[in-house]
Amino acid sequence: MVELGSTSITIVSVIAAVAVASLLIAVVLRRQVLAAGEGTESMREIARAVQEGASAYLSRQFRTLALFAVVVCALLFLLPGDGGVKLGRSVFFLVGAGFSAAIGYLGMWLATRANVRVAAAASEPGGRAEGARIAFRTGGFVGMSVVGLGLLGAASVVLIYRAEAPAVLEGFGFGAALLAMFMRVGGGIFTKAADVGADLVGKVEQGIPEDDPRNAATIADNVGDNVGDCAGMAADLFESYAVTLVAALILGKAAFGEQGLVFPLIVTAMGAIVAVLGVFITRVRGAESGLAAINRGFYISALVGVALSAIAAFIYLPSSFADLTGGTAGLETHGGDPRLIASVAVAIGVVLAGIILWVTGYFTGTTSKPTLHVARTTLTGAATVVLSGIGVGLESAVYTAGIIAAAICGVFLLAGGSVALSLFLIALAGCGLLTTVGVIVAMDTFGPVSDNAQGIAEMSGDVTPEGAQILTDLDAVGNTTKAVTKGIAIATAVLAATALFGSYADAVASALRTAGEVGDELTASMLNYSIISPVTLVGVILGGATVFLFSGLAIDAVTRAAGAIVFEVRRQFRENPGIMTYEVRPEYGKVVDICTRDSLRELATPGLLAAFAPIAVGFGLGVGPLAGFLGGAIATGVLMAVFLANSGGAWDNAKKIVEDGNFGGKGSDAHAAAVIGDTVGDPFKDTAGPAINPLIKVMNLVALLIAPAVVAISVGDDANQTVRLSIAVVAALVAAGAVVASRLRAARDDKHDLTREAEKALA
Amino acid sequence: MVELGSTSITIVSVIAAVAVASLLIAVVLRRQVLAAGEGTESMREIARAVQEGASAYLSRQFRTLALFAVVVCALLFLLPGDGGVKLGRSVFFLVGAGFSAAIGYLGMWLATRANVRVAAAASEPGGRAEGARIAFRTGGFVGMSVVGLGLLGAASVVLIYRAEAPAVLEGFGFGAALLAMFMRVGGGIFTKAADVGADLVGKVEQGIPEDDPRNAATIADNVGDNVGDCAGMAADLFESYAVTLVAALILGKAAFGEQGLVFPLIVTAMGAIVAVLGVFITRVRGAESGLAAINRGFYISALVGVALSAIAAFIYLPSSFADLTGGTAGLETHGGDPRLIASVAVAIGVVLAGIILWVTGYFTGTTSKPTLHVARTTLTGAATVVLSGIGVGLESAVYTAGIIAAAICGVFLLAGGSVALSLFLIALAGCGLLTTVGVIVAMDTFGPVSDNAQGIAEMSGDVTPEGAQILTDLDAVGNTTKAVTKGIAIATAVLAATALFGSYADAVASALRTAGEVGDELTASMLNYSIISPVTLVGVILGGATVFLFSGLAIDAVTRAAGAIVFEVRRQFRENPGIMTYEVRPEYGKVVDICTRDSLRELATPGLLAAFAPIAVGFGLGVGPLAGFLGGAIATGVLMAVFLANSGGAWDNAKKIVEDGNFGGKGSDAHAAAVIGDTVGDPFKDTAGPAINPLIKVMNLVALLIAPAVVAISVGDDANQTVRLSIAVVAALVAAGAVVASRLRAARDDKHDLTREAEKALA
Repeated sequence: MVELGSTSITIVSVIAAVAVASLLIAVVLRRQVLAAGEGTESMREIARAVQEGASAYLSRQFRTLALFAVVVCALLFLLPGDGGVKLGRSVFFLVGAGFSAAIGYLGMWLATRANVRVAAAASEPGGRAEGARIAFRTGGFVGMSVVGLGLLGAASVVLIYRAEAPAVLEGFGFGAALLAMFMRVGGGIFTKAADVGADLVGKVEQGIPEDDPRNAATIADNVGDNVGDCAGMAADLFESYAVTLVAALILGKAAFGEQGLVFPLIVTAMGAIVAVLGVFITRVRGAESGLAAINRGFYISALVGVALSAIAAFIYLPSSFADLTGGTAGLETHGGDPRLIASVAVAIGVVLAGIILWVTGYFTGTTSKPTLHVARTTLTGAATVVLSGIGVGLESAVYTAGIIAAAICGVFLLAGGSVALSLFLIALAGCGLLTTVGVIVAMDTFGPVSDNAQGIAEMSGDVTPEGAQILTDLDAVGNTTKAVTKGIAIATAVLAATALFGSYADAVASALRTAGEVGDELTASMLNYSIISPVTLVGVILGGATVFLFSGLAIDAVTRAAGAIVFEVRRQFRENPGIMTYEVRPEYGKVVDICTRDSLRELATPGLLAAFAPIAVGFGLGVGPLAGFLGGAIATGVLMAVFLANSGGAWDNAKKIVEDGNFGGKGSDAHAAAVIGDTVGDPFKDTAGPAINPLIKVMNLVALLIAPAVVAISVGDDANQTVRLSIAVVAALVAAGAVVASRLRAARDDKHDLTREAEKALA
Repeated sequence: MVELGSTSITIVSVIAAVAVASLLIAVVLRRQVLAAGEGTESMREIARAVQEGASAYLSRQFRTLALFAVVVCALLFLLPGDGGVKLGRSVFFLVGAGFSAAIGYLGMWLATRANVRVAAAASEPGGRAEGARIAFRTGGFVGMSVVGLGLLGAASVVLIYRAEAPAVLEGFGFGAALLAMFMRVGGGIFTKAADVGADLVGKVEQGIPEDDPRNAATIADNVGDNVGDCAGMAADLFESYAVTLVAALILGKAAFGEQGLVFPLIVTAMGAIVAVLGVFITRVRGAESGLAAINRGFYISALVGVALSAIAAFIYLPSSFADLTGGTAGLETHGGDPRLIASVAVAIGVVLAGIILWVTGYFTGTTSKPTLHVARTTLTGAATVVLSGIGVGLESAVYTAGIIAAAICGVFLLAGGSVALSLFLIALAGCGLLTTVGVIVAMDTFGPVSDNAQGIAEMSGDVTPEGAQILTDLDAVGNTTKAVTKGIAIATAVLAATALFGSYADAVASALRTAGEVGDELTASMLNYSIISPVTLVGVILGGATVFLFSGLAIDAVTRAAGAIVFEVRRQFRENPGIMTYEVRPEYGKVVDICTRDSLRELATPGLLAAFAPIAVGFGLGVGPLAGFLGGAIATGVLMAVFLANSGGAWDNAKKIVEDGNFGGKGSDAHAAAVIGDTVGDPFKDTAGPAINPLIKVMNLVALLIAPAVVAISVGDDANQTVRLSIAVVAALVAAGAVVASRLRAARDDKHDLTREAEKALA
């Protein structure tokens, strides 16, 4: 155990100050956004309805999750460990969860105010640049908050707990990941249930445009953009930030000693500077597309990030491993130059982000070959559109996974085959990836804000034709940036999860030293990490299965909730013929209520599954199979996440290609087929896909936290197989019970909806 | 190394005789089928067109594959090893491939003759029982051929090569798996391209029924059933049989010595007896459904299989491990009773088959809740049908994978945690599963035969209304039995692949003993099986990615080929208005030609990927990551295979539910939505899904075959990293090149089709 020297303390204090400065910049950006004009009364009224719906949903969601957080916090305290560290871990679990929630809430708050301002700006002269500026500044606010709070949390833990920081950081990361997972799932179900429901009745059945005020689901759709695509995404990226930083700090301490605990903080502090730069240099020049401006901003800030990190490495780190203070991984005799190695690792992470940006653009952009191929299949009907989108998604997942795998191999070679060093460097590459996160978040928030702005413009009817075109362009940019963010987020999940295996193995090894004798073959198999052991392979299968089940549950939840909304919107059209003639205003609130109720109800099952499946596997089969479980979840998870995100992105933009007048254009059979593809893609890309990222991290951190307890209860004098198996059975029952409960609800819903349909048929 | 005792030789000779007897029974069944009446001239004419198309396709396919087989055979000879064994391995590679091809061809030959006989019988009095009898006897022929040839091949190798049999058996299994994979892929693309193309234009655009003679794609559709669902499936199950038996023999020798080499043959010989029983006791009583009769036949023969295997174990095996002759795994001191342990392992396999039968029925049956749920979502449109089917598929995959995982854990507990013993027992459980394979194959062949019979009846118009109803009922039974077969086949893949890990580790260990020194950390990482090593985890990711890419390529190939057929059928309707009024006969042959050309062209890419990806990973990253690769492929593969099979099955039967008059019935919007779901499911369940089973086995056997070469070239005095990396790069380039070539073709096709569409628009 190392204590921090005074230089380190000074540096970490400076980093904490950088974090605070980032938050201050966020406040400035927020003020700039709020200073813009709010448009006509009618626009403001619509915006208010969206604000209220989004606030009400998030407040109810946080009340539900607060209870859950308290329970988990108590369970955390039951795990073995030193009292002070345990208390810190539980407290920082709540801090991580609170930060995650706060970023989501604040992001949503500003986005629901920025949308109307973008809509208003679009009709003014120079509206194109001004609209993009407001939307991007809103993203900048969220980005700076993510960077600021992430850095502040981590720096505080290091300053307070010094050498014991790693254990406490696990709690911080876990809290952030757990909250983010729930927000991704709940918000994802809300947004896509509303979107799918609105499209199915509005576009497909009634033939009215998107965001038409006669559609009872439009307000819910706009609320959904904010609670899902904005709040959920912001929490998710905060969690990526926090967990990657946590992994780097834990492993850095083992590999580089004191400097390893401080250097990742330095790199991410550089990321804060890069983020400010990115947000302020990104502006639309003349008639160029919003995407071109954003890409330029990204690549410039990425380059600056690499340069600054390298400079920091060469100033801060010594030139030989022997000069590092107190690493425990025994790298003193390593021949390389830590400054160079660390700089290259960071650079690999940044390059990885750039390549993912490019690949995602290739597979989902409106002018790229795969998307054009999907658009072309609209000529042969909906079935071929669905099939071609799935084909594109599966293929793109392979390339993205391959690139991430190549980055890991590259880092491994850089480390000369040393596992301990390579794990730290993988985490450092993750930090490199994250130096771009400020810009990424800003890019992503762009999506829901411009989408909402378009909705408000359409519903109010108060926007000029030129303004409407500007908003449509901005919205299309949002589609691509959203797909990119998901690729980056899942890459951080793989890097962080791979790196955390190092801490996992350390935790197991140290628990084994305490426990003593291993005993018989059956117990030994519980500790076997080798993939050729049948039970470890069973772990891999179960890990993959959890990802499949989680995805299936999320998609199913959307299908069911969307079904309820379809029936409600149809009912309103049927019972109030005046809606169609604009005489009666539809009851928007009812649809928002259904979305809220269903999302909160459905979010529990995948959440419980993620938290309890690793507990069941760990206590039931052992830490070896649990490692296999995590490996299976990471591998299947990255593939599934990218598959779902990119299929969805390709369908979305294929629809845009058709709507732009190709293959028959709007209203043709090809367009109907494209809309079906897009609708299938909605829960893929915005519910199941993005939730896999926090899922992987939650399962990883649960495994890391319980590993010592599993060892203590399986091996040595205190072993108690009855208690061990009881814990496994209870955890399995909780996870299975959640799934069964969800199934029973589904069966009841099916009956209920049928009754309504029968009533309709009789009426 | 043990030599076989005279008792063993006698037993194996008896088993060879049982194999020959099975083949004779197959000949008898064939004669029985051919003895039935062939129906009207018009029926015979249609049947002849199908026979010719199917024969022509398979002959061309075999010519293409023969070249490939010769190349692989030569490559096999390049691998290190003893000359005699190497020669045997190469020869038996060709024998395995030849058997696989022969079973596919013979099965197709009889099925294309049985279809017209079933159609003819349905119109006669007592047609229900007679039709089912002919269809099931056809299946019985294929089943007995599978069992007979599998057993004959394995017994011959044991008799000829004695103690060296395991190495030669690898070649036999590899040949069987490789051919089967190509037949599954090629046949699967053919059948679904024709089916999807026929449905898209016929059912969806023109509103004419399935198998309407005016549809130019109907003959191709019927040909497809035979080359895909019949020949491809038969080869696939033969391969499952062969590879599982191979795994059991290899591992049996290590665990049980001489008795371990003979006992799996005894169990499968019992399977031959069980198969005869199953085929002859399965008959439809009175008005009961065909499925009830098949289920009864399955469960009775499964029970008999368990009983016979247990009796054989108690007669043949000694009561203690110490009395086993010459096992190398050091189990002499194991306290259990080998007779009991072996019997229970076989029973676990049989029970696993029964549970999979039940679960698959639950998720895809026409009266089960999940299928009803999918059917209900037709009320809210095609998008929700697709989403709900995907949800059901993902969920069912988890349960099937979970059950297989539980079986592995059960066997592991039975072995008391000994890895060597548990691997053999897992293979024995696979043999238990396979005692039911005769009945399973018979069940599955039922599908294409009755499907074709219905097609011939519809096209000829020569069947009575009662006869038509009987054929429809038989066809529906075929849908469920097909889904069950896929579940069983993938279970054998997991069990065989898991077990083969044992041989893999042995091969590596023995190569390491020869090579000597391991050297530096980077080389050590190449040998690291631990899933917490970053490169091994990379292997897991790449294994999963290969399954995704393979599935995506297969689905894409169908989409593209179906697109070509849609354009062709549309062209014929447009250019010959007489087709619609029955005045002009459509050019069926043109569509068959397109299917043949496209399937043969598209089958190369996934095939090369499967063969070369493990070589690239093995030589590039090492045997540890290669083990990770296999683990990732197994885990993702089983999930993906079941997901694809069961989504497809659920959509297919959901469509049947709607067609039976529910939710609006035929011609309603709900029906249109159901047809889209079914079409999406076609390449899922009949192309990509079932091909994953042989894919896993091919990759496993490639890994097993190259492992010693990888070790020899990486470690010790003969290590040559340049050659190693060159091999990896060449293999990666071959795999990637195949994918790129396929992409370029796709781009050209896209343009070509576009040109035609443009012409049409101008005309």
